[in-house]
Amino acid sequence: MASTAGSIIPCKAAVAWEAGKPLVIEQVEVAPPKAMEVRVKIKYTSLCHTDVYFWEAKGQAPLFPRIFGHEAAGIVESVGEGVTDVEVGDHVLPVFTGECKECAHCKSQESNMCNLLRINTDRGVMISDGNARFSKNGNPIYHFLGTSTFSEYTVVHVGCLAKIDKSAPLDKVCVLSCGISTGLGATLNVAKPKKGSTVAIFGLGAVGLAAAEGARIAGASRIIGVDLNPSRFEEAKKFGITEFVNPKDHDKPVQEVIAEMTNGGVDRSVECTGNVKAMMSAFECVHDGWGVAVLVGVPNKDDMFMTKPVNLLNERTLRGTFFGNYKPRTDLPSVIDMYMKKQLEVEKFITHRVPFSDINKAFDYMLKGESLRCLISMDE
Amino acid sequence: MASTAGSIIPCKAAVAWEAGKPLVIEQVEVAPPKAMEVRVKIKYTSLCHTDVYFWEAKGQAPLFPRIFGHEAAGIVESVGEGVTDVEVGDHVLPVFTGECKECAHCKSQESNMCNLLRINTDRGVMISDGNARFSKNGNPIYHFLGTSTFSEYTVVHVGCLAKIDKSAPLDKVCVLSCGISTGLGATLNVAKPKKGSTVAIFGLGAVGLAAAEGARIAGASRIIGVDLNPSRFEEAKKFGITEFVNPKDHDKPVQEVIAEMTNGGVDRSVECTGNVKAMMSAFECVHDGWGVAVLVGVPNKDDMFMTKPVNLLNERTLRGTFFGNYKPRTDLPSVIDMYMKKQLEVEKFITHRVPFSDINKAFDYMLKGESLRCLISMDE
Ligand SMILES: NC(=O)c1ccc[n+]([C@@H]2O[C@H](COP(=O)([O-])OP(=O)(O)OC[C@H]3O[C@@H](n4cnc5c(N)ncnc54)[C@H](O)[C@@H]3O)[C@@H](O)[C@H]2O)c1
Ligand SMILES: NC(=O)c1ccc[n+]([C@@H]2O[C@H](COP(=O)([O-])OP(=O)(O)OC[C@H]3O[C@@H](n4cnc5c(N)ncnc54)[C@H](O)[C@@H]3O)[C@@H](O)[C@H]2O)c1
Ligand SMILES: [Zn+2]
Ligand SMILES: [Zn+2]
Ligand SMILES: [Zn+2]
Ligand SMILES: [Zn+2]
Repeated sequence: MASTAGSIIPCKAAVAWEAGKPLVIEQVEVAPPKAMEVRVKIKYTSLCHTDVYFWEAKGQAPLFPRIFGHEAAGIVESVGEGVTDVEVGDHVLPVFTGECKECAHCKSQESNMCNLLRINTDRGVMISDGNARFSKNGNPIYHFLGTSTFSEYTVVHVGCLAKIDKSAPLDKVCVLSCGISTGLGATLNVAKPKKGSTVAIFGLGAVGLAAAEGARIAGASRIIGVDLNPSRFEEAKKFGITEFVNPKDHDKPVQEVIAEMTNGGVDRSVECTGNVKAMMSAFECVHDGWGVAVLVGVPNKDDMFMTKPVNLLNERTLRGTFFGNYKPRTDLPSVIDMYMKKQLEVEKFITHRVPFSDINKAFDYMLKGESLRCLISMDE
Repeated sequence: MASTAGSIIPCKAAVAWEAGKPLVIEQVEVAPPKAMEVRVKIKYTSLCHTDVYFWEAKGQAPLFPRIFGHEAAGIVESVGEGVTDVEVGDHVLPVFTGECKECAHCKSQESNMCNLLRINTDRGVMISDGNARFSKNGNPIYHFLGTSTFSEYTVVHVGCLAKIDKSAPLDKVCVLSCGISTGLGATLNVAKPKKGSTVAIFGLGAVGLAAAEGARIAGASRIIGVDLNPSRFEEAKKFGITEFVNPKDHDKPVQEVIAEMTNGGVDRSVECTGNVKAMMSAFECVHDGWGVAVLVGVPNKDDMFMTKPVNLLNERTLRGTFFGNYKPRTDLPSVIDMYMKKQLEVEKFITHRVPFSDINKAFDYMLKGESLRCLISMDE
């Protein structure tokens, strides 16, 4: 055990004191892990839209002060009672959704929506005792998604930690703990395009480009990128996108445009926009008889998905996925492995890099739409 | 070749002269089969809702005089030029949708929606020359679904004929050429429940009961039947239905009732009603994480399927199927085989029997909701 085990660790964390206000690097105190918890020294973290969304807190009940961050890679500093799956010194990826290995979902071969540790955006405390492990001057600072990786040390439920091979470079695989795996898995685990097939990707943000990367890896012959923002197209070429469609350039619905381009529809589509219109188009642009459409984007609360039933009866399949159907502990090591074998090109996603002290720049890059992923280095 | 080969055959057929008026048994003339066509002596036929629907002609452009009928079993009388897959004396089931074996759908392992011979309810003629093979006093009588089995002899495209084993009793397997296979295949080929799983069946007509039969064969532990008509429940027990839910008996939506009965939802559901509300309930009653809902019923033209996207994102799958995803020529022999091996209990579906001369009684039984299938015997 490290000499810090069992003690409170004082360290730096980027605290969000108020909705939409720049994070402040503060000295905070991180309590030791309790039963089934692990304290992790974060080496790298990156910023995802979900952090920004809850930091802006426009839609939801605000919960502040809070430490955001859920894409990260780190090293186990100490473990709480009952933790047997990881030990001090292990390399780990914290994940925003967990895997208890005991519930019906964890035992199902198909689901990754663990009953115990499923994503919970409202909770700001640990599930064991309902308290935060972060504090400043004795006052609690709330957790986010059970990960709170914008801190030199954090405490995470062991079910939310993927143990990875020590040979994997943490400054690369860091970005595999959320959006990239989500898009990749949506294609590889759910859409499952065959070699030579045609795939449409709706939304060319990081998630959509990861879905395209999945299609490229699967050997798709045509990968059609769809986005309302034409500036996304240039970068998308690196991710195997072979053709672009901007719905704004056409008078007819984009699903009809795609059907014409592909002799009746694509074999697979993956929606990564969060826009319900794009979801409906993504469904209706797949070929009858065998087409599969996969929804990834998180919609607005009151959105309604609508389609004529005949579109389904003509043997189309519509599926939704969460975190690319990867079970975080069981499956993430295989994603890392794809990167180590040079099948998955992670570097393309890391467009920016800042030291921890400049974390607010990562927010700027994302808000301006300049970055795919901005790596935040804790040691710099 | 039979002595009739190459000649016009005069025979009896039940002609629908007008929408909704009783069929009239008439002496008609049946021309010899042209290229890729086969003339079949029908031994048994049965009545399906689709016949009644187009006979009533309330929704569509009426096409009369017409010979209905598309569930049947018969024997090849003669074959047209180029027909190599069947020969005189072969036992066959005419099917309302075909399999050309050449198009993208026929070559796909997933689809059975042949481009050339896909169901066409408007066409009343043969595709080769746009003419009818039936006539009376020199005036054409139109075909229905390319099968027109309410006639002692009929002409069918070879792609719409499943050749079956001669040991199969035609008075039983006759009913496997439409609704029963549709429901059975929806469960076995598309929903694919695992042994021990829970299945909900919406609509307990012949199609839904065949879907239940599929669930029973697959080893489902609970099969929940849902129907607005409580009189369907008693008969349904014979088909493995273990529990019944009548949406009218509950204040809350039936999907919530089912979720409560099953700790969060069924593993699989199969909708066999044609009612869009039932389609939405069937989708929303499956368990998150792994649930699969399959739509079979034919909706009204303007129906809209609506659901909140989060129901999909929580890892549910929604699929539609046509003819239970069976390829008629390739796959129907395996369905017959299931019957011959006593896995599939076809007899339960045949609730009534009439001679051909009483064919209008079959319509009465169906309109009164008394029959599942009424067998019509051509030789009696
Ligand atoms: N299901 C999960 O597990 C999971 C995990 C992470 C992210 N997500 C979701 O995936 C989605 C994409 O995430 P991201 O980080 O790549 O977002 P992003 O904002 O970077 O990219 C979305 C892209 O979609 C485009 N777009 C928006 N509406 C469109 C429309 N109607 N047609 C075509 N393109 C349209 C935008 O122009 C943008 O380029 C989001 O909804 C996010 O919440 C889901
Ligand atoms: N896809 C195909 O290939 C194919 C082939 C044959 C039939 N079908 C369709 O399958 C459906 C069923 O056929 P069938 O012959 O068994 O019909 P049917 O009329 O005998 O049975 C339908 C049953 O559904 C029940 N029902 C209606 N609305 C309901 C609701 N909202 N909730 C619960 N139950 C409801 C009715 O009471 C009835 O018992 C029809 O729509 C038919 O057109 C499809
Ligand atoms: Zn994320
Ligand atoms: Zn679990
Ligand atoms: Zn075909
Ligand atoms: Zn039918």
